[in-house]
Amino acid sequence: MTDTATVLARLADTLESRLPANGGDPAASYTAKLLSRGPDAFLKKIGEEATELVMAAKDNAPDRIVAETADLWFHCMVALAHYGLRPEQVLQELARREGTSGLAEKASRPVN
Amino acid sequence: MTDTATVLARLADTLESRLPANGGDPAASYTAKLLSRGPDAFLKKIGEEATELVMAAKDNAPDRIVAETADLWFHCMVALAHYGLRPEQVLQELARREGTSGLAEKASRPVN
Amino acid sequence: MTDTATVLARLADTLESRLPANGGDPAASYTAKLLSRGPDAFLKKIGEEATELVMAAKDNAPDRIVAETADLWFHCMVALAHYGLRPEQVLQELARREGTSGLAEKASRPVN
Amino acid sequence: MTDTATVLARLADTLESRLPANGGDPAASYTAKLLSRGPDAFLKKIGEEATELVMAAKDNAPDRIVAETADLWFHCMVALAHYGLRPEQVLQELARREGTSGLAEKASRPVN
Repeated sequence: MTDTATVLARLADTLESRLPANGGDPAASYTAKLLSRGPDAFLKKIGEEATELVMAAKDNAPDRIVAETADLWFHCMVALAHYGLRPEQVLQELARREGTSGLAEKASRPVN
Repeated sequence: MTDTATVLARLADTLESRLPANGGDPAASYTAKLLSRGPDAFLKKIGEEATELVMAAKDNAPDRIVAETADLWFHCMVALAHYGLRPEQVLQELARREGTSGLAEKASRPVN
Repeated sequence: MTDTATVLARLADTLESRLPANGGDPAASYTAKLLSRGPDAFLKKIGEEATELVMAAKDNAPDRIVAETADLWFHCMVALAHYGLRPEQVLQELARREGTSGLAEKASRPVN
Repeated sequence: MTDTATVLARLADTLESRLPANGGDPAASYTAKLLSRGPDAFLKKIGEEATELVMAAKDNAPDRIVAETADLWFHCMVALAHYGLRPEQVLQELARREGTSGLAEKASRPVN
């Protein structure tokens, strides 16, 4: 548990160190290169990885589903880093929704 | 930390309880309804939420970026639940990549 | 041929008439409603329909592939109408690429 | 008009000639390379180009909106070619919807 509990926080720390403002070196790191190219570069990856996850799911391929979800979440976290946000905020939002009103609220949403 | 550390695990437990095979009631829960409709229903949401995240990012709107990332990760976790997978496996994959070979490997990937 | 040759132009004319500025009535038309809600409403549909097309393709379902491509192109044309653009411009761009330099240029692009 | 009227048909003919079964040479053509790699290669592009179109629209950049729509439609047509389908079928579907029942039917659809 300890390991997975902190993996998002550690990854976020690493991603932050790759920001151009923090001296990230585009020549030395995939993430630094992606961040140096600006939002469209990593936002495009979010659309691409979401599609790859959908295809892995349609193929019923567990290993690829896990790998593509990891790719998708990774690029979401690159975006969070760029915008000065943390994965903990996403987790808090998920926890908030799961709280008192959370599931009732979701239950009332239409599935469209 | 304790709270965010376990939020994905708790959410995964909740989602599993919404599976049709576990007695999830489509009339009582958004997630149970989504899971009862089969993969295309929640996979479509992954494409939709990814697009909404991209739009929130283009609008430079921090609150919406966090909310849309939460929406996207939530629907990824619905997919994981359907395929009998756990978010811990995604976190382990992210941790594995960050290990010894991880960042070097990424650094060598072209940004396309 | 005559019919398909002009379908995009006629559809574009119809979509233009649904613009709020041209008196499109959100209560009377799906398109007018979509256009009245602003870009995010129809841009989100582009991401959603693209995902549905991918799923139809993975299912190898010809009728759904045609229907989802129609859905996707329809919502692209809603976007074109909003931005004052015409499908003929898209066709001209496709024709231009197919011209002298077109296929050679494409042949030199890496598949990523 | 003549030019744009037939551009999709001509492009579809070209794409068909790039199919592996028709002797398309992956070394000589971007399309032949894409088709030779199988559905996931070009379906992934559909998700990617849809996202790029959304970003161009959010940037309110007319030239990029046209170019990205062309990219998206091009890759849709690569998919159609792979599945033995024609753009004329997509146009017929769009025309059918615009017919008698078409707009009324759409008007009754909820915008979600």
